Amino acid sequence: MISKNQLKLVNSLRLQKYRLEHGLFIAEGVKLVDEALKSNFDIYQIFATTEWISFGHLPKNRYLVEVVEISQAELEKISALATANQVLALVKLPSGIHLPDPAGEWTLLLDQIRDPGNLGTIIRTADWFGIDRIVAAENSVELWNPKVVQASMGSVFRMPVHYTDIEKYLSDNAQRVPVFGTMLQGEDIFNIQMGTEGIVVIGNESHGISDAVKPFITRRITIPAATAGSLGRAESLNASIAGAIICYEIRRQCPK
Amino acid sequence: MISKNQLKLVNSLRLQKYRLEHGLFIAEGVKLVDEALKSNFDIYQIFATTEWISFGHLPKNRYLVEVVEISQAELEKISALATANQVLALVKLPSGIHLPDPAGEWTLLLDQIRDPGNLGTIIRTADWFGIDRIVAAENSVELWNPKVVQASMGSVFRMPVHYTDIEKYLSDNAQRVPVFGTMLQGEDIFNIQMGTEGIVVIGNESHGISDAVKPFITRRITIPAATAGSLGRAESLNASIAGAIICYEIRRQCPK
Repeated sequence: MISKNQLKLVNSLRLQKYRLEHGLFIAEGVKLVDEALKSNFDIYQIFATTEWISFGHLPKNRYLVEVVEISQAELEKISALATANQVLALVKLPSGIHLPDPAGEWTLLLDQIRDPGNLGTIIRTADWFGIDRIVAAENSVELWNPKVVQASMGSVFRMPVHYTDIEKYLSDNAQRVPVFGTMLQGEDIFNIQMGTEGIVVIGNESHGISDAVKPFITRRITIPAATAGSLGRAESLNASIAGAIICYEIRRQCPK
Repeated sequence: MISKNQLKLVNSLRLQKYRLEHGLFIAEGVKLVDEALKSNFDIYQIFATTEWISFGHLPKNRYLVEVVEISQAELEKISALATANQVLALVKLPSGIHLPDPAGEWTLLLDQIRDPGNLGTIIRTADWFGIDRIVAAENSVELWNPKVVQASMGSVFRMPVHYTDIEKYLSDNAQRVPVFGTMLQGEDIFNIQMGTEGIVVIGNESHGISDAVKPFITRRITIPAATAGSLGRAESLNASIAGAIICYEIRRQCPK
């Protein structure tokens, strides 16, 4: 059974303020909690139905974690999913990780991604294509927002994501590795040689790449649109789509 | 000024039931309404602030359309955007369009896309890459859901989208053009010859391509993931990302 205080704690974690205050975030559903258990993250508490507990999801070699058995009705009370799915875990926020030298790596640099679903999808895609890390502008949507965690489908437990002053990061690193960005009148991606390392800038959903970041881009990429029909053509691609296509092209040219 | 009845009408159109009853859907914001005005769609009514009206967005050769001048406060009352943006149009639902022969065309077939943001993004991406049309399973999310219209960034006014019984559609057409679908253990997309026509199946966000559709797929495609690290790797790509990568590959091999 879930106590009043536990209920209050879980619900408070829907807000960033309380995630930071308690140092915890939420991972929900069988798949995500399995990923959390497989990861290097510490888990604070698990709320689960009999069904989940009896299935034996807890790895034998895992440190002790408190599992609170709750009813389906209780789970529905704390779940934000359309269909509550057996289990909800409170996971400890990781402590700051060192942001390494970008040489020899592929880094996605997110210039103010605002939509949690987009951020989660970008993390999942980067994980799929073996991108090494993500560097996000400090005012991007927060990583531990439940919608980001959910949309990442667990990739948030594997992909290193750093929040930092991206202008400083670029001014420190833009001379050392190529910096790619999708812009109008760039090199045609169909002909481009991506190479084996670099920073790929992904712009904001509405405003694209910001004026402060543009000067750092050393390789301008254009993803060609089809010739416009009589009614015109889409003016741009969604930020996570453009990012995914570049990740795909990196791996198409240089499988890993 | 907006009347009580107009206010009631606009708010009712947030629900599919009333969209069908009134034969209208909502397009909001300067960009989307501009796209609607450029399109072949009929516009029933426009609610706009002085700012929008005085800018002269209405094309001179456009048939008469009723423009109701409203205040910023009134616009905020009827807007579903985070930041209300000058204008909201009520657009007439198009009447049924004939679903043509897929020969010589590229068709995206959506096998139960549920998320309105995903559907909008797929339409926008398909428009960008010059895909000819989209065929959606009847139980997919509705095209005129305001979130679909918004996420499409206006491409919904250009891209033909048909809702139909996709099993019947496939059984009629799968012998005539290649049917591509992303599946495990398919041909590696890095080596595949896409050709110049075909149906590309995009599966459901959670369940992938349904069992009823799988037998129709004649070209199984795999988008290779990077080799898994010590913590594993993402298990799949988001449906709209996988779809976008196939659209990209079609145009990479055969620019249009």
